[in-house]
Amino acid sequence: MKIKNNFFKIQKNVYLSDILKILRKKNFNKKIKINNISDLATSSKNDISFFNSLKYLYLLKKTKAKYVITNDKYKNIVKKYSKIILVEHVLKSVSLVTKLFYPESLDDAVDFNVTKPLQEKYKKVKFGYNVLIGKNVSIGKNSIIGHNTIIESNVKIGANCIIGNNVLIKYSIIGDNVRVLDCSVLGKKGFGFLPDKNKNYRYPHIGIVIIQDNVEIGCNNTIDRGSISNTIIGKNTFIDNQVHIAHNVKIGNNCIITGQVGFAGSSTIGNNVSIGGQAGISGHLNVGNNVQIGGGSGVIKNIPDNTKVMGYPAKDIRSFIKDIK
Amino acid sequence: MKIKNNFFKIQKNVYLSDILKILRKKNFNKKIKINNISDLATSSKNDISFFNSLKYLYLLKKTKAKYVITNDKYKNIVKKYSKIILVEHVLKSVSLVTKLFYPESLDDAVDFNVTKPLQEKYKKVKFGYNVLIGKNVSIGKNSIIGHNTIIESNVKIGANCIIGNNVLIKYSIIGDNVRVLDCSVLGKKGFGFLPDKNKNYRYPHIGIVIIQDNVEIGCNNTIDRGSISNTIIGKNTFIDNQVHIAHNVKIGNNCIITGQVGFAGSSTIGNNVSIGGQAGISGHLNVGNNVQIGGGSGVIKNIPDNTKVMGYPAKDIRSFIKDIK
Amino acid sequence: MKIKNNFFKIQKNVYLSDILKILRKKNFNKKIKINNISDLATSSKNDISFFNSLKYLYLLKKTKAKYVITNDKYKNIVKKYSKIILVEHVLKSVSLVTKLFYPESLDDAVDFNVTKPLQEKYKKVKFGYNVLIGKNVSIGKNSIIGHNTIIESNVKIGANCIIGNNVLIKYSIIGDNVRVLDCSVLGKKGFGFLPDKNKNYRYPHIGIVIIQDNVEIGCNNTIDRGSISNTIIGKNTFIDNQVHIAHNVKIGNNCIITGQVGFAGSSTIGNNVSIGGQAGISGHLNVGNNVQIGGGSGVIKNIPDNTKVMGYPAKDIRSFIKDIK
Repeated sequence: MKIKNNFFKIQKNVYLSDILKILRKKNFNKKIKINNISDLATSSKNDISFFNSLKYLYLLKKTKAKYVITNDKYKNIVKKYSKIILVEHVLKSVSLVTKLFYPESLDDAVDFNVTKPLQEKYKKVKFGYNVLIGKNVSIGKNSIIGHNTIIESNVKIGANCIIGNNVLIKYSIIGDNVRVLDCSVLGKKGFGFLPDKNKNYRYPHIGIVIIQDNVEIGCNNTIDRGSISNTIIGKNTFIDNQVHIAHNVKIGNNCIITGQVGFAGSSTIGNNVSIGGQAGISGHLNVGNNVQIGGGSGVIKNIPDNTKVMGYPAKDIRSFIKDIK
Repeated sequence: MKIKNNFFKIQKNVYLSDILKILRKKNFNKKIKINNISDLATSSKNDISFFNSLKYLYLLKKTKAKYVITNDKYKNIVKKYSKIILVEHVLKSVSLVTKLFYPESLDDAVDFNVTKPLQEKYKKVKFGYNVLIGKNVSIGKNSIIGHNTIIESNVKIGANCIIGNNVLIKYSIIGDNVRVLDCSVLGKKGFGFLPDKNKNYRYPHIGIVIIQDNVEIGCNNTIDRGSISNTIIGKNTFIDNQVHIAHNVKIGNNCIITGQVGFAGSSTIGNNVSIGGQAGISGHLNVGNNVQIGGGSGVIKNIPDNTKVMGYPAKDIRSFIKDIK
Repeated sequence: MKIKNNFFKIQKNVYLSDILKILRKKNFNKKIKINNISDLATSSKNDISFFNSLKYLYLLKKTKAKYVITNDKYKNIVKKYSKIILVEHVLKSVSLVTKLFYPESLDDAVDFNVTKPLQEKYKKVKFGYNVLIGKNVSIGKNSIIGHNTIIESNVKIGANCIIGNNVLIKYSIIGDNVRVLDCSVLGKKGFGFLPDKNKNYRYPHIGIVIIQDNVEIGCNNTIDRGSISNTIIGKNTFIDNQVHIAHNVKIGNNCIITGQVGFAGSSTIGNNVSIGGQAGISGHLNVGNNVQIGGGSGVIKNIPDNTKVMGYPAKDIRSFIKDIK
């Protein structure tokens, strides 16, 4: 699913020479215009992309990106499919280029464009006390926004939603018939940065949070927005209290996520997955469809479809039960 | 302890024919009035109850309920003690009947009856800024309600309490000398629902949260109200930050619950129990009196009185220590 | 680092006779003035201190405290270095004496001195809606305070900070260029008390929270202030969402603390330490420099410098990997 969003203003008139300059590369004074930075899969032909793992070779082969940032290790492979920009640290370079295109995506400031909602603008929406709404927000009919809740600029909320009290929503698109219960925070930038001895370097986050129809999100959840791709919660998935979902995580439809579960960044969870309380899912993993993960489990590798796992580290439920006997 | 609560308006004039209709049962046009739905133990003689586990046979033998919802598996047992209503899915049917009696218990909307507190009504109570108080709230003398806190309709708070800032309290009865620290949410409906491919079916929650005298609840706690019974925190129990307590959990007196502990639904914890940080207690368990549960433990079976346990899954502390050597 | 703080008013004119009286000791009518209660390391010569573990013998040998509270077990050791006050329960007695010196440190009330910020007082600070600021607060230039945030009296915040929405800060000193993201609570009293059958006895907390330059604290964190020493987060340390840091914890510089990690009280963490999601660190431990702790680990003993650990309980990463094969 490709969602157009208005959340981050892109800088126009970025030239290859600008990019080479911030990467401290020799500048051959090439006046080539670059339109955007994007991942290999979604790049258009005047975009710049990046490659730093053989896992994504199948995407490299099809990418439309004119330039691909990579390092010494992969330069000979990348060369075959596109022009390369050779750097030492791929992710740091991607971060610098993203900042060039999206200067506001780096640091989460406070939205000072919020005001009290104008009831004439949101005729069929019911607002509690002290609600603050940003610019260019849309809210569907019969939705309710609880007391002290803040909806930042450009957020879209569907019809028949109940947003609880003390909720904060930023950089998010929310479907119909969704519940977001009290004190949850949606759309904050993810915990992605490049460590540095003196002052860590924050990684830009230009992805958003997408909550599909009929989802319920409990109290005190934190769901971070994506860095380059989006964080997605699929249709009819229900999430309990105190769950943490990091950037770029994609959760399928009809999942049941119990209290205090945590997801590290960039994992993908299938449909009909149930996860017991306090389980943790490491980053960059694939959990299949129809998977059951027992409470307290620590998932540190991919889980195939139709499996039940439990334990730390999580293993097949039968071997978990055998081992504890 | 049986607490009368005014939180959920019960529908009067519910007849057996109405119940049979929503259960899609043949309607024999019986004009029998049914007063309430309740569990086997607390039913009065014109109530309807339900049976779906042999664990509760001792309660079935003494129940006063005139009708008991059950399924094929238990029909012959239930028949001996009361009239039966035979269904395919007991919990789904109970949910439908509960919704019939308590239509407002299904979905947590926002309380739009709250307003700024009238100081003349709460003469000996001190309120912070931006406090919102519902209808029919009572607060004992010398209690303090912090800034931005919301106390929804019908809540009772005792004397000498300190309720912190940004707290949300709904469907709760709170004793004397209680502390509820900042950003905690008490009384939200539990995470109980019947999964459905297209749109999950929310389970009604007509229980409340009861906090007894001298309890301390830390910051960012979530304590959900019960579905049919209540969620209870016993006298002089102290709870640290970021603890999650699911629906129907009963915690005894003088317990110590450390940070980030989680309780799944319907477990019962004895008196003088101490639980170390990040431990998890599965659902429907009994933990005895004077039990010590080590930090990070995962409790997945009943724990007898006077035991120390640790590990995932939790076992006797001596065998835990032996195993890790 | 010794930080002078104005947070707790100390009672002047406390005499040894007052102290002996509350400890129910025979009062020899000694008119000796005592200036303060402090730990062995920081005591001045007219202070009272305490000793209840041989771990701190090296501090006892150098303490300047005139009187030291101790029990029967250690009286002969303590006698060699200072005058002793012999009690049955050392910590309870320390608590009683601390309460005598700092009567407001016991129970977290609500700060009723907060008001809307006066823009002329904070000329270069940008405030959101509904912000509340206490007395004697200082905020450096170009800092931003988000909507609904409460900064209690005496708090100091440096320059170029972003404090998010719905944040609560009390008893804290914050450096320059710090981020405190939405819904975090800093400076609450720790979860320290003396259990008692009828009514637990709260332990005074006269320490504060110190956040050094360039730190980032995520959403929904709880960072408690210290009891006698301070809770400290070192320079350029980044903390993810839903992390709990108990009283007296000291975290070094350049650490990376991922989502849902928990620290029990009084542990010390070195520099350049990275901790994976949901890991827990027990109380009173030392974790060295350059340590990596895997996600979900439970650390229950000291960890030396330059080690990688994982598991529950945490052990060397190589033996963890070997064991799970």
